[in-house]
Amino acid sequence: MRKEIVMLQDLMKIHDFDAYLVETSDFHQSEYVGEYFKCRAFLSGFTGSAGTLLVTQNSAYLWTDGRYFIQAENQLKDSGITLMKMGQAGVLTLEEQMASLFDDKFTFACDGRTVSYSKLQGLKERFPSMNIVLNQDLVNEIWNNRPSLSCEKVFDYNVKYCGETRTSKINRIREKMEEFNAESHLITSLDDIAWILNLRGHDVACNPVMLSYLVMTKTNCTLYCQLQAVDENLKEILEEDGVSLRDYYCISEDLKLLDEGPLLVDPTKVNAFLISCLPKSIGRIFKPNPSTLMKSIKNSVEIKNTKIAHIKDGVAVTKFMIWIKEEIQKRSITECEASDMLESFRRQQEHYLEPSFETIAAYGKNAAMMHYSAKPHQQATLENKNLFLVDSGGQYLEGTTDITRTFALGDVDDLQKKHFTLALRSMLALQNAHFLYGCIGLNLDILARGPLWDENLDYQCGTGHGVGHLLNVHEGPNGFRWRMMPGRNESAILEEGMITTDEPGVYIPNSHGIRHENELLCVKGEENEYGQFMHFEVITFAPIDLDAIDESLLSFREKQWLNHYHQQVREVISPYLTEQEKVMLEKYTREI
Amino acid sequence: MRKEIVMLQDLMKIHDFDAYLVETSDFHQSEYVGEYFKCRAFLSGFTGSAGTLLVTQNSAYLWTDGRYFIQAENQLKDSGITLMKMGQAGVLTLEEQMASLFDDKFTFACDGRTVSYSKLQGLKERFPSMNIVLNQDLVNEIWNNRPSLSCEKVFDYNVKYCGETRTSKINRIREKMEEFNAESHLITSLDDIAWILNLRGHDVACNPVMLSYLVMTKTNCTLYCQLQAVDENLKEILEEDGVSLRDYYCISEDLKLLDEGPLLVDPTKVNAFLISCLPKSIGRIFKPNPSTLMKSIKNSVEIKNTKIAHIKDGVAVTKFMIWIKEEIQKRSITECEASDMLESFRRQQEHYLEPSFETIAAYGKNAAMMHYSAKPHQQATLENKNLFLVDSGGQYLEGTTDITRTFALGDVDDLQKKHFTLALRSMLALQNAHFLYGCIGLNLDILARGPLWDENLDYQCGTGHGVGHLLNVHEGPNGFRWRMMPGRNESAILEEGMITTDEPGVYIPNSHGIRHENELLCVKGEENEYGQFMHFEVITFAPIDLDAIDESLLSFREKQWLNHYHQQVREVISPYLTEQEKVMLEKYTREI
Repeated sequence: MRKEIVMLQDLMKIHDFDAYLVETSDFHQSEYVGEYFKCRAFLSGFTGSAGTLLVTQNSAYLWTDGRYFIQAENQLKDSGITLMKMGQAGVLTLEEQMASLFDDKFTFACDGRTVSYSKLQGLKERFPSMNIVLNQDLVNEIWNNRPSLSCEKVFDYNVKYCGETRTSKINRIREKMEEFNAESHLITSLDDIAWILNLRGHDVACNPVMLSYLVMTKTNCTLYCQLQAVDENLKEILEEDGVSLRDYYCISEDLKLLDEGPLLVDPTKVNAFLISCLPKSIGRIFKPNPSTLMKSIKNSVEIKNTKIAHIKDGVAVTKFMIWIKEEIQKRSITECEASDMLESFRRQQEHYLEPSFETIAAYGKNAAMMHYSAKPHQQATLENKNLFLVDSGGQYLEGTTDITRTFALGDVDDLQKKHFTLALRSMLALQNAHFLYGCIGLNLDILARGPLWDENLDYQCGTGHGVGHLLNVHEGPNGFRWRMMPGRNESAILEEGMITTDEPGVYIPNSHGIRHENELLCVKGEENEYGQFMHFEVITFAPIDLDAIDESLLSFREKQWLNHYHQQVREVISPYLTEQEKVMLEKYTREI
Repeated sequence: MRKEIVMLQDLMKIHDFDAYLVETSDFHQSEYVGEYFKCRAFLSGFTGSAGTLLVTQNSAYLWTDGRYFIQAENQLKDSGITLMKMGQAGVLTLEEQMASLFDDKFTFACDGRTVSYSKLQGLKERFPSMNIVLNQDLVNEIWNNRPSLSCEKVFDYNVKYCGETRTSKINRIREKMEEFNAESHLITSLDDIAWILNLRGHDVACNPVMLSYLVMTKTNCTLYCQLQAVDENLKEILEEDGVSLRDYYCISEDLKLLDEGPLLVDPTKVNAFLISCLPKSIGRIFKPNPSTLMKSIKNSVEIKNTKIAHIKDGVAVTKFMIWIKEEIQKRSITECEASDMLESFRRQQEHYLEPSFETIAAYGKNAAMMHYSAKPHQQATLENKNLFLVDSGGQYLEGTTDITRTFALGDVDDLQKKHFTLALRSMLALQNAHFLYGCIGLNLDILARGPLWDENLDYQCGTGHGVGHLLNVHEGPNGFRWRMMPGRNESAILEEGMITTDEPGVYIPNSHGIRHENELLCVKGEENEYGQFMHFEVITFAPIDLDAIDESLLSFREKQWLNHYHQQVREVISPYLTEQEKVMLEKYTREI
């Protein structure tokens, strides 16, 4: 067994804990977490962005989803940890595995700040006699040189980019509190807080958020944060807008003294420890944070700016495409060099801040790992053949982007061309969807998945996710998925102004991987006696590599869709290219 | 105000009832009800198969769904009853309307035997201070010449048709009771009881069920029915199989004395009055009847027989198609005559018992009413032009069928051809679906609805429903629908052996209506690393009228689908036709 696990098990024996749970989470249920919070990666060695580790006194199990099966298999090899492939037939869930391991009475421990209240409630319901210990951060005791908590400077996000003042947002949330008869509201999700207060930070790589909590009443609004992260000037601006500051670590003590209730709180986002701090006398209204839906419906200023960000991003990706397809004919290039080159094209764009997530630059069989990450010491070298998948995005002052293109670096075999074309048909079908208002992602998912299902293929993940505005690249409550996933908040009605990615793919382990990804803005179409029709406006602009297409597999309608899209790409991107690049873009976007 | 409503309101005033609810239901929450139970039609004059009537001391409201908007508008004209179009924007639900009419405390009455327990619970939650009277069948007091309760002979349904003995079914249900820790099980839905006991009756027109309740314990099985409906021989057979008989009306008194619990009961199917009879000490396990899912998954004998029934039915419909398209060139024909002629073709088939629902034979604009029913005194006369929609089905000893075809009786204008072709594309897309096991109807619905949505059209009803086996033509828990409908049990995972209709349409009020309907048997496809793939086998065989198709609107793939289907129709149906009919079928199923 891996030594970090053994050390934890030794501590568990001392404390007499039967089970210790380590989720991939900070105190805010963030999807991506700062270095300080990477306890699951420290313990298990598995570095993917999603995973749940259960340790018993003599065993350990790690659950992760289809994006990471291959990576987890590699990283867990010889660790002694059993990999649990979520959603695969016959694979037990965490609860099922616990039920198979323990009798009625056992002691379950965790750092309750990193486990959501709803997750803990689920466990309590399943194991009513279980003894629970919430205040044990055992990992801290064995993690030497644990990185310190991030405390980066916070900045005021100008209303010219985000389109609505913080006081307006606070008022809208107070209206919702009124509607739910809530006297107070605790918000713990970092992107919700950043959105409400028009603040941005750098406490999580690629996610411009700040470590913070927010407590609102009908009259007060208190931001709990690391005080040194907010300069005096910003502090004054916030106070003028009715937002007062308190130290980040005061939240639990303050909640113990809360006297305004009932409290509105999102049970999937608040951590179990904070709820345990609340006085018994305070009623709880468990509902999604009103800000989550508000945030997902982009206003006209956000939409205008997001489109600008996407043009910049499309220019960077197009320049990169031209560079890589040319350069690879002359010499070999590593995945990391290619990734750095793409980053340099993005940095040429005004108002570019950082990547919106760690770039996936995956050549050949590496691309079969959906969330592969090349490392200098472990990476492939590109050659002038086969496919190169690049999934990347940028944080611009104008907004957040997420785009995937798969490039043919030379000869591509027929099967890869077939898969490339199938995945393209999938993406095109969804981006051209036309539907009645009221549809959720679940209704539309088969448009993307159908062309692959017809060939007995599937990608074992969702088809798309909501995207924040200079915020997290993954955000709810919109998404495209064919099955409800417990704990995933992705089944909202598709509203005008929501932005969702459309990213089907084909992944053949040890062979190749293909993904095409555009972002879709939901817009209104005709309203008539049947209701309000909706469709999507594609806001991502970069060529689909025609060199990897098998035209014979495209219907007339699909060719029309592709030609129309390429015409848009040409019109939007050309003005920002050199004359030489323009010629290449003409070729890349030629009519077929 | 219509006089029947006024009479009810007078009684309500005497009893001091503020609200009186009349659902379209018998004591078993049946969709279609015997004549005795047609209280809502008696009171309101609206004869559609679905509707909820709320009467107050000075107003009345009738809710119905999109299938019946046009019919209800016509039938409620001058009745004083307000039509509430369910699902339309701005139309209040029953609960919302009640909330707008009444203060906290009001008296709500109904015949609690005709209102489901879950419906009443919903009302109780919404109106916690409401005073409830469940034992008032006020309609009985004003309905002179009310038809008597049906009491038709019950027959033993041979296992050679249904494939599983009643003892085997009872054992399977007892296993489920065990799983749920239930000591007793009350089943009130007529089709569940008929399926479990392999009994069929004639107490509801077109639905071969018998009025009955079933109470099971781990050792006993008691059938409550009208004893004179079961002959001595059958009674003995049932007793040999462990099923004892009690009088239909003894159920409520027996339930008051029930001492084996907890009781498993389906809250959406049991009526509120029966639950009110249970001793307080008896625990209740509210879950769907296990028989409902079992019944929907047809066994191999049922499937083999159902396919035979469909061939017979296809022969009848094909002969009818040939007859109507020829005959209408010579003379005019009424809707009723056409409907009778179709019935006569079905009667020519061996083992044909009765229609599976009231035939919809709707010419021209009448077809825009989804569930139109021609009456001798109010019907259209067919001419040799335009479209004629016929939705019909048969009960055969081998199974139940449901088929819709729309025929061109002569010239059809371009818009009608376009709509005909769109609806055909819809049906073909769904019947050719290929999907991973785990999909529900909600995932697939857009395949059918998409081609219409693309043209800003919609049909305001589900796309398809489960079909019983010599049982109700509508049965859950499978179905195709794009939104969950509260109270509708149609969201089961599509299982191998389930049969579901595929019946998209286009309905243009006052102009024309088109529907194509095939039945689809869910079957397994390839199983691989992605899971178990599923698809459909079409089991309905009758030509789609090529005279109404605009070929230019069909893609190459869609033409292939249609040609393939027509080839199957030709092969399956030809052997049962005359030489002259064969020639016509060749023409009707020609390749395009």
